[in-house]
Amino acid sequence: MAMAMAATAPTMIQSNACNYPPTSLLFSVSSSRRFAQVKPAKLDFEQSRRRVGQTYATLLSENGEYYSEKPPTPLLDTINYPIHMKNLSRRAYPHKILTGRRNKMPTLRQTNGLSGFTKRAESEYDAFGAGHSSTSISAGLGMAVGRDLKGRKNHVISVIGDGAMTAGQAFEAMNNAGYLDSNMIVILNDNKQVSLPTANLDGPTPPVGALSSALSRLQSSRPLRELREVAKGVTKQLGGPMHELAAKVDEYARGMISGSRSTLFEELGLYYIGPVDGHNIDDLITILREVKATHTTGPVLIHIVTEKGRGYPYAERAPDKYHGVAKFDPATGKQFKGKAATRPYTTYFAEALIAEAEVDDNIVGIHAAMGGGTGLNMFLKRFPTRCFDVGIAEQHAVTFAAGLACEGLKPFCAIYSSFLQRAYDQVIHDVDLQKLPVRFAMDRAGLVGADGPTHCGAFDVTYLACLPNMVVMAPSDEAELFHMVATAAAIDDRPSCFRYPRGNGVGVPLPPGNKGVPLEVGKGRILGEGDRVALLGYGTVVQSCLAASALLEEQDITVTVADARFCKPLDRDLVRSLAKEHEVLITVEEGTIGGFGSHVAQFLALDGLLDGKLKWRPIVLPDRYIEHGAPIDQMIEAGLTSSHVAASVLNILGRTRDALQMMT
Amino acid sequence: MAMAMAATAPTMIQSNACNYPPTSLLFSVSSSRRFAQVKPAKLDFEQSRRRVGQTYATLLSENGEYYSEKPPTPLLDTINYPIHMKNLSRRAYPHKILTGRRNKMPTLRQTNGLSGFTKRAESEYDAFGAGHSSTSISAGLGMAVGRDLKGRKNHVISVIGDGAMTAGQAFEAMNNAGYLDSNMIVILNDNKQVSLPTANLDGPTPPVGALSSALSRLQSSRPLRELREVAKGVTKQLGGPMHELAAKVDEYARGMISGSRSTLFEELGLYYIGPVDGHNIDDLITILREVKATHTTGPVLIHIVTEKGRGYPYAERAPDKYHGVAKFDPATGKQFKGKAATRPYTTYFAEALIAEAEVDDNIVGIHAAMGGGTGLNMFLKRFPTRCFDVGIAEQHAVTFAAGLACEGLKPFCAIYSSFLQRAYDQVIHDVDLQKLPVRFAMDRAGLVGADGPTHCGAFDVTYLACLPNMVVMAPSDEAELFHMVATAAAIDDRPSCFRYPRGNGVGVPLPPGNKGVPLEVGKGRILGEGDRVALLGYGTVVQSCLAASALLEEQDITVTVADARFCKPLDRDLVRSLAKEHEVLITVEEGTIGGFGSHVAQFLALDGLLDGKLKWRPIVLPDRYIEHGAPIDQMIEAGLTSSHVAASVLNILGRTRDALQMMT
Repeated sequence: MAMAMAATAPTMIQSNACNYPPTSLLFSVSSSRRFAQVKPAKLDFEQSRRRVGQTYATLLSENGEYYSEKPPTPLLDTINYPIHMKNLSRRAYPHKILTGRRNKMPTLRQTNGLSGFTKRAESEYDAFGAGHSSTSISAGLGMAVGRDLKGRKNHVISVIGDGAMTAGQAFEAMNNAGYLDSNMIVILNDNKQVSLPTANLDGPTPPVGALSSALSRLQSSRPLRELREVAKGVTKQLGGPMHELAAKVDEYARGMISGSRSTLFEELGLYYIGPVDGHNIDDLITILREVKATHTTGPVLIHIVTEKGRGYPYAERAPDKYHGVAKFDPATGKQFKGKAATRPYTTYFAEALIAEAEVDDNIVGIHAAMGGGTGLNMFLKRFPTRCFDVGIAEQHAVTFAAGLACEGLKPFCAIYSSFLQRAYDQVIHDVDLQKLPVRFAMDRAGLVGADGPTHCGAFDVTYLACLPNMVVMAPSDEAELFHMVATAAAIDDRPSCFRYPRGNGVGVPLPPGNKGVPLEVGKGRILGEGDRVALLGYGTVVQSCLAASALLEEQDITVTVADARFCKPLDRDLVRSLAKEHEVLITVEEGTIGGFGSHVAQFLALDGLLDGKLKWRPIVLPDRYIEHGAPIDQMIEAGLTSSHVAASVLNILGRTRDALQMMT
Repeated sequence: MAMAMAATAPTMIQSNACNYPPTSLLFSVSSSRRFAQVKPAKLDFEQSRRRVGQTYATLLSENGEYYSEKPPTPLLDTINYPIHMKNLSRRAYPHKILTGRRNKMPTLRQTNGLSGFTKRAESEYDAFGAGHSSTSISAGLGMAVGRDLKGRKNHVISVIGDGAMTAGQAFEAMNNAGYLDSNMIVILNDNKQVSLPTANLDGPTPPVGALSSALSRLQSSRPLRELREVAKGVTKQLGGPMHELAAKVDEYARGMISGSRSTLFEELGLYYIGPVDGHNIDDLITILREVKATHTTGPVLIHIVTEKGRGYPYAERAPDKYHGVAKFDPATGKQFKGKAATRPYTTYFAEALIAEAEVDDNIVGIHAAMGGGTGLNMFLKRFPTRCFDVGIAEQHAVTFAAGLACEGLKPFCAIYSSFLQRAYDQVIHDVDLQKLPVRFAMDRAGLVGADGPTHCGAFDVTYLACLPNMVVMAPSDEAELFHMVATAAAIDDRPSCFRYPRGNGVGVPLPPGNKGVPLEVGKGRILGEGDRVALLGYGTVVQSCLAASALLEEQDITVTVADARFCKPLDRDLVRSLAKEHEVLITVEEGTIGGFGSHVAQFLALDGLLDGKLKWRPIVLPDRYIEHGAPIDQMIEAGLTSSHVAASVLNILGRTRDALQMMT
């Protein structure tokens, strides 16, 4: 059962004793965001005690078709909640299995199943939701301060990966934790992923960022410390407040023990313990006991060193392959992957960018620790000096790109739609306001399947199309993506962005030589002419519009289908002619309110085109978060399938019975 | 003439010689964002040489009514561009005076005048726009890498304040700079402002953040170093690459010289020099010469210690008062301030929050180094243990607040509209997705006068109202602000936000006891009934609507005026009745497309209310950045004055001649 999580949860400190006050354990995020393989727990033993009386099914799912063999688990069968572990030795299992969700593990990352991330709504043991990186210290500090204000006595533990440490927010949080001096424990799970190898496409890349060297220096300058030594240090030194004169003596004393100098973490006011072997559970538990038992003042950082995939030979050999892992056969390590006739949009983007870069030396690529996820590892292989992985640091990535643009380079920032949210201010303040030609390639736009709402690219059209200087576009298929990469390369007097989805292309022919041709900026196209109703799609939902058109043909309705291509500048001539020549204009997009449809409506209103009898209907993502699940399930939930679009047309034409039939 | 900038630019390193390649000098931001008192320069001497032939007026403005005396400036009269300084000794003047803009200095921060920040569009000597903090290292690194890719030889210097160092982006940038190892110089201007005292309201607060202690330790453990010693260290050590084995020897050697241990900056891979006296211009120039002349490998950080307001006794005594300073009399230091019958919205917010906190122990305040600007210094004075200044760290502020909310506290995050952009991902991922009741009090919403587009709160309604769980509201006057603070305090099952402008209230009576009463969520109100035309305003532009209504009365037109109060949830009943009972519905807001008007339109469309003859017209901020200037000038530029609104009504009613007259 540990399969889909084999590569995770290096230490089961949940198995720690309960003769201490309740503990909020926040595994915010490991070294990765894409599949933050960390399993938060709310180890509130009082709560778990309260729930002991309840009964929970402990049956394994019968659905075992993906597993070569279901191993017997006599010990695990006795556990469902942390309280059950009190009788056990210290070997344990990943978080979700131990917190009432074991019977749902086969549903992990599936429709209506368990989330791949921690999620407050899913379990009271998920203290804080994870997904994007580097949030755990901030959230944990908030909980620690809240505890103090409320006069409670529980412990707060934040777990953070070394990769997540490169994000500015982690630094901001440590700086503030060192200042506020609330009691909390930060566990730095250092598995040498400072930049994570999310090697979806092209193998892992070595860690980037000077922090990596700093951590390496820590590891090399101090051998993994023996329990006795660490425990001695802890007991001896945690008595006094860090911020007083005693701290000097304290540091000196510790220097004597560790033979090393101050660390970055100490500079920020955290009490540093480590490095220690994260796979030595007994030692870890002892250290945590010591830290918890001591009446410390202020935050403590415990630096543990682990190995990704430890204990599973296939994962040890290829740690990048088991990061956010698909289903696999535990006996052979072989991952199950579907076959597809087309390749991912990610790959097409990389190919298109390489084609442009072949003929333009100024093109450079920037990504934030997502070389695999964005396809830029392919670009790196072709142009080793023109690709920059800045670590998990989207803010820096964007302003860095702005600096490059100042020097006449043509930067392409490849950042997932949901991750670009973290650089929104830099997009506005450093790029758009200065009208610098930075290009934003936003992968994972729209719904993202198994990753769910934390990674859903729902908002980008709304939050970017309101910026005055930005060109905002979206390809309707993979050939259009090639053209939009070429278009972005050609737009050199202002910023531009384009969004494309997770998943594979639709199978249209690629442009000659697999190289795009710049489109006329602000011009859409008509894909099929009809009457009465026009469907104006933006992005890959144009495919839903085309399919809806085919469904409607069967009902003797011929609709116009248009591909807007640009949200900004809007193709006013196209919108005007669609509005004038049809009774109904339906805008369709895989994004939230405030985006493409809103821009169309604003133009229609100001042009007087809404004053008459035109019926405008916007189809957008619903005003709620769509849970993780199979892509088709998500599209159904969102009301964006071809059947939905076709039914909307039937409805507005008064054929409500046909509309109902269409949906059944 | 140095007056409005007296508190700035501690060192005039622009006066440095020109027998080196051209230098891009980026003063990104000092310890403050609100008025980032740093004056970037593009010291490209080749360019300045090219422009020597041009002539520029060197006349001082005749407009001297604010100055008690205009001091004679015989030396300064000879200088307009950096090239002119080659003949001079090393005393010099602030950046904008020396870069062709001396004659425009009296227009600083005024309509059509010079910007208070660096601005690329304003001068080729402004290498990168400043405004929000902590961007200079990222941008400078981009320029350094771009220079290397292009094979150029110029220098890049980023200047950053110690306050700006608390932002995560600075950390991200240093981490990446240490890794990329491009040659660049970072000047840390340490004037002990780690948290800046933007004491608009209530005096300065002491520095926050552990970084402050780290810098203090650096300063105390190493006395300001003598030039000879520093120069010796620089020359001796900058020869070898930091990242090789030689670095070890190097560090050891330096340890011998400075008698101190490694710094946070060294941990991140920057070569640390300092601390040095930033007011000793001769020493500074010598150090910079050494650093520039040495063929270094990698980034160098020069830590200079300065005193804010140095050389101007009034500013030295009250450094907080001269940060983003209004006009003042240089002879007496007295600032000119207008008199007003009402107080700023900021003050009303603080009073309202204090009133709520008096009766609810769970209410806490969080701000990001803006205790003065947000009014939370007043809250701090009343509730010292319930107010948290996290430093310039909006990302952390928001997730920290989410953590507090998890523990049952009621956090109010007071962050300017434009600064909340920096925490957009945290607002989505840590707050809204988890439906945690964090309250966002957004000051400086809409146009902000002298600060200009970097600080304009244009986008918040658009980027927040698209979030599924967020309650989005805006008060139309100061009494409404009291009620909305109470409303936000009462909303405890989801996040909420409210926006209010820079500037003073309109003079309406405050609620009894200066304490608000919670409003019904999602309900607006009608302020005046008319026929044919309805004006539906959101936020303080409701005042423009009321004034427009009065103007129209003179034209015998009686319009309905409604105050929406909520953008989300929208008052559907109100919108529906306005749409059904009028020919024209005009939505008015001080925000961008995609916000309130778009939400109204979407509802109208889905409700079929746009299918008939209703004319909907949205009035929003125009699709361009509005430059700094007097508030009334900005409102005219934006088309949001009462005359504009009234003229729009006249126009749509066919009275175009009256409309024209209204605008003249």
